Amino acid sequence: MGHTVREKPKLLARVRRMKGQMEAVERALEAEAPCGDVLQLLASIRGALAGLTGEIVEGHLHEHVVHAENEAERQKAAEELAGVLKTYIR
Amino acid sequence: MGHTVREKPKLLARVRRMKGQMEAVERALEAEAPCGDVLQLLASIRGALAGLTGEIVEGHLHEHVVHAENEAERQKAAEELAGVLKTYIR
Amino acid sequence: MGHTVREKPKLLARVRRMKGQMEAVERALEAEAPCGDVLQLLASIRGALAGLTGEIVEGHLHEHVVHAENEAERQKAAEELAGVLKTYIR
Amino acid sequence: MGHTVREKPKLLARVRRMKGQMEAVERALEAEAPCGDVLQLLASIRGALAGLTGEIVEGHLHEHVVHAENEAERQKAAEELAGVLKTYIR
Repeated sequence: MGHTVREKPKLLARVRRMKGQMEAVERALEAEAPCGDVLQLLASIRGALAGLTGEIVEGHLHEHVVHAENEAERQKAAEELAGVLKTYIR
Repeated sequence: MGHTVREKPKLLARVRRMKGQMEAVERALEAEAPCGDVLQLLASIRGALAGLTGEIVEGHLHEHVVHAENEAERQKAAEELAGVLKTYIR
Repeated sequence: MGHTVREKPKLLARVRRMKGQMEAVERALEAEAPCGDVLQLLASIRGALAGLTGEIVEGHLHEHVVHAENEAERQKAAEELAGVLKTYIR
Repeated sequence: MGHTVREKPKLLARVRRMKGQMEAVERALEAEAPCGDVLQLLASIRGALAGLTGEIVEGHLHEHVVHAENEAERQKAAEELAGVLKTYIR
């Protein structure tokens, strides 16, 4: 059973919280809130997203790369990881 | 009328699209999708979030800093912006 | 007198420290040090660079945007800032 | 022979180029250049640094994690990588 399966309830709770944060941005825009407030909401979503990503990356690295079932799986998981990291290391 | 008010329909459409992307993450986790897929969804949300943030930052800078109604407003808007930038420049 | 002029000795000291950190990367590569060490050196340079950038951005915003000598200067400084921020907000 | 050893001449050339970019920042500050120029130099160093980091991370992942000599080495290299990624995924 994979890490995103084992941690499913916790990960889902975090995603739902982020969806709630997105709805807060929606309400702020609808209510014509000061854009400084909107920017702060967006910055906190970015933080939450990065936290979740970091945790899944770590799980992926540990489980699908380090403890892969075979070399082909390991290679494939490492390539997926390398692709994702290009978004962050820049 | 502020930039987030003038652009409200477009900004709201982008936020709703991101909420939809968050729901795609939720479904992927619920369906126990490969975590490589989850990571790609998260990376695309980060991109969308950054795009929206960049646009609001630019509007904020133009409208509330450059074209502020008075010096006190300008100072206040610049401080808000400086606070937000700390999240991104690191 | 501009902020990068007023703060010149401190800013130069920071830049020279970063040049020293770059030389540490050079020596590590020449000595064929473990690449984990090289990655840590690079991560600390990124941090130092972001710290310096954040400070100059804040000075730029305060001095050339908020306290610009005239509206044309303010507009120009804001555009420069917006251009630079595109590198960071993504 | 490791990737940072095999690629040593190319990696060293990139580090030296970045040292040169740092010296350009030094000269710009000494010459009291416009701070918009300094910010652009700093942004280009950030880009160069990220490019180099991305390449070494990929080499590290491929060589020390995927093709580690044994499980203990693989585990150690993955932990180093996870530590480094915390700087970038945020």
